[in-house]
Amino acid sequence: MTTFTISPYLPSRRATLAEGQPISELMSRALDNPGLISLAAGFVDGQSLPVDIVREVMADLLGDHAEARAMLQYGATPGLPALRREILNQCTPMDSRQETLDRVVITAGSNQLLHLVAESLLDPGDIVLCAAPTYLVFLGTLANLGAKSWSVQTDDGGMIPEALEETLAQLADAGELAKVKAIYLVPYFDNPSGITMPAERVQRIVAIAKQWSHRTRIHVIADEAYRELRYKGEDVPSVIEFDDDGETVIVAGTFSKSFSPGVRIGWGILPEHLVGPVCAQKGNIDFGSPNLNQHLMAEVLRRGLFSAHVETLRSSYSKKLDVMLNAADEYLSPLAGVKWLRPNGGLYVWATLPPQVDTGPAGELFDRSVAEGMLYVPGQYCYPSEGQPVAKNCMRLSFGVQSCEKIREGIAALARAITAAY
Amino acid sequence: MTTFTISPYLPSRRATLAEGQPISELMSRALDNPGLISLAAGFVDGQSLPVDIVREVMADLLGDHAEARAMLQYGATPGLPALRREILNQCTPMDSRQETLDRVVITAGSNQLLHLVAESLLDPGDIVLCAAPTYLVFLGTLANLGAKSWSVQTDDGGMIPEALEETLAQLADAGELAKVKAIYLVPYFDNPSGITMPAERVQRIVAIAKQWSHRTRIHVIADEAYRELRYKGEDVPSVIEFDDDGETVIVAGTFSKSFSPGVRIGWGILPEHLVGPVCAQKGNIDFGSPNLNQHLMAEVLRRGLFSAHVETLRSSYSKKLDVMLNAADEYLSPLAGVKWLRPNGGLYVWATLPPQVDTGPAGELFDRSVAEGMLYVPGQYCYPSEGQPVAKNCMRLSFGVQSCEKIREGIAALARAITAAY
Repeated sequence: MTTFTISPYLPSRRATLAEGQPISELMSRALDNPGLISLAAGFVDGQSLPVDIVREVMADLLGDHAEARAMLQYGATPGLPALRREILNQCTPMDSRQETLDRVVITAGSNQLLHLVAESLLDPGDIVLCAAPTYLVFLGTLANLGAKSWSVQTDDGGMIPEALEETLAQLADAGELAKVKAIYLVPYFDNPSGITMPAERVQRIVAIAKQWSHRTRIHVIADEAYRELRYKGEDVPSVIEFDDDGETVIVAGTFSKSFSPGVRIGWGILPEHLVGPVCAQKGNIDFGSPNLNQHLMAEVLRRGLFSAHVETLRSSYSKKLDVMLNAADEYLSPLAGVKWLRPNGGLYVWATLPPQVDTGPAGELFDRSVAEGMLYVPGQYCYPSEGQPVAKNCMRLSFGVQSCEKIREGIAALARAITAAY
Repeated sequence: MTTFTISPYLPSRRATLAEGQPISELMSRALDNPGLISLAAGFVDGQSLPVDIVREVMADLLGDHAEARAMLQYGATPGLPALRREILNQCTPMDSRQETLDRVVITAGSNQLLHLVAESLLDPGDIVLCAAPTYLVFLGTLANLGAKSWSVQTDDGGMIPEALEETLAQLADAGELAKVKAIYLVPYFDNPSGITMPAERVQRIVAIAKQWSHRTRIHVIADEAYRELRYKGEDVPSVIEFDDDGETVIVAGTFSKSFSPGVRIGWGILPEHLVGPVCAQKGNIDFGSPNLNQHLMAEVLRRGLFSAHVETLRSSYSKKLDVMLNAADEYLSPLAGVKWLRPNGGLYVWATLPPQVDTGPAGELFDRSVAEGMLYVPGQYCYPSEGQPVAKNCMRLSFGVQSCEKIREGIAALARAITAAY
């Protein structure tokens, strides 16, 4: 056979922009060191996964031949109507009239919904306003599309409405307002900060989004991945309840944190005008989420097993959160300048160190922490690429995966590392 | 509350290019007419779905607590190693050394693999050479990315190597060669033509791809979605076996046709240089396919239940194909100028009518067929957007879903419609 000159693979622009998620590297670092206590991964507690529920429901469903055949066949791209109805009834409490039902789309976790919405809204160079800090994987998604994440200042109530207005005014002055296509919020137990936004604040943000929608609509994307994981206080209304005409707010939800990530079922509630574009994109990617998994979740919800499981999770994670906060009180509070937030739910505690401490993988603390036997997520990964400066002295600590003992040990190891690194 | 002027949603370029799949409309037309015999949808036979296998394996797996927990937890983005190994052993027979295993990625059907590969290879304006006709959904994916599908002439052995060279020469003359990033083939029981490409021809096409890879590599994408569904003759080697250095050929496979579309598990075997880009894209979309479904398929394969099921399918579809071909002999052969191919496998029969007959939804035949009680896929949807002219006088007839009786009735109805429309 003739030998030909080997020519290179030229990646598409997309491929060039799709850096591996920094958190994946961190995770594989954890896997390489089986002794390491990872307070980095946002995984859920393996011990509390709903094995019995899934076994029981799956056996019943697959025991019914007609139902089983439906589960193993193709479904419609937007997803199973029965599941979409239960989601409206139980997960994002809203009326489940047909018009609302038509706005629900089932996706591969909330992450796929975020991806599909970003694809439908953003061209390269477009801007999404995000809290600083915010969910790092979504930042990667935006970078992959060639879009810009732009930070808005936060306090302990999340994104500050006045800061949002100020940022919009600055962007308008710079002639960039028409590029602002969305405001991204994680209103419940934010990843990474753990903050829950007060109702008045999200209501104000929806009003600001509408007010500043001049030439193009500015959508509000509410990522409600952690809504179910509340350990203290009462649920607050979703951002979508403040969207009078239903044309501004997008809600993303998921069963990954509240039930099982291995089932990979999430959802979106979309303004009517986005249902077509999102489903067209999804149709081109996967024709719709697995029918098998959708039937499973619809039946789990129908039987009331989901809310029962969430109760169990709450009690288990609530203990873990207490353990982490108590360990922090014990080991970290003696260290000058170390502070952390006390969330009412979710899976994360956000800690801030003195300004001179660099928590990044290049700084001294990260390697010392690994040497002491623990891993955290450096906070710098959670900052948008534009706008406010990146804080280098923060970290995200997860309490989802590890046992109570390991959480204590991990925080103790972190305290030793901080002491040594100062 | 203040009333603000409503500004419009401006779709992204992607969203503008994502036309709904024409086949979706056809399918919903079928759903609206329950009496209609659809020979259009590429669905699989609901009666032959592997209900007992899935029930049994799922019960066993979920009965083991440790295994069940693994199934319900997150997995790695490229997919479950055990499943990837079984795929190499049983589905795309290749050595399963670690280097090959690292090139296997699990996706949501083969369609997601095609999407991820297209994202990793193509910028807007880039060109993919396709057989005319070819798989219509992939044409939609290319259009969605702003890429061009470019047709290459075919005969009853599929894409003609000499025509491929001629097309490449023409594109080179036009200064467009650097934009050609891939050649797309459906080598086994092509959708829509049913054609299987002879080994010498695919080998020749791989050589041409390498030879014409001047400034940028031209990949060969082999969509092997129907490989398992052979009813006559012996399996032929995959295109990937002719790729000496493993840098040119991409294989896409799926369990959607050979097992269950509702499980939504497919795979790709990629050149090493594409594994990173494809996984980075997939990570941004869904973090990896559902672990639940991957464990299921790995165990189904491990127990030898997959190949057993494929045997059952072959015998059932083989009968249906015979029924369709016999019905065509009986009802269509008396009609002047009506011809069709006789495939050795797959789910489709490709028919050609006299040149003056327009089979499209705008022509007379489509409505007459619906009136007579049957639905087909107009062939014009299966033609690339550039290059050869689109044939308007063809149609795809599926024998997967309908019973033998309905297949006969459907072909009889088609014959009546053709007679009336002439």
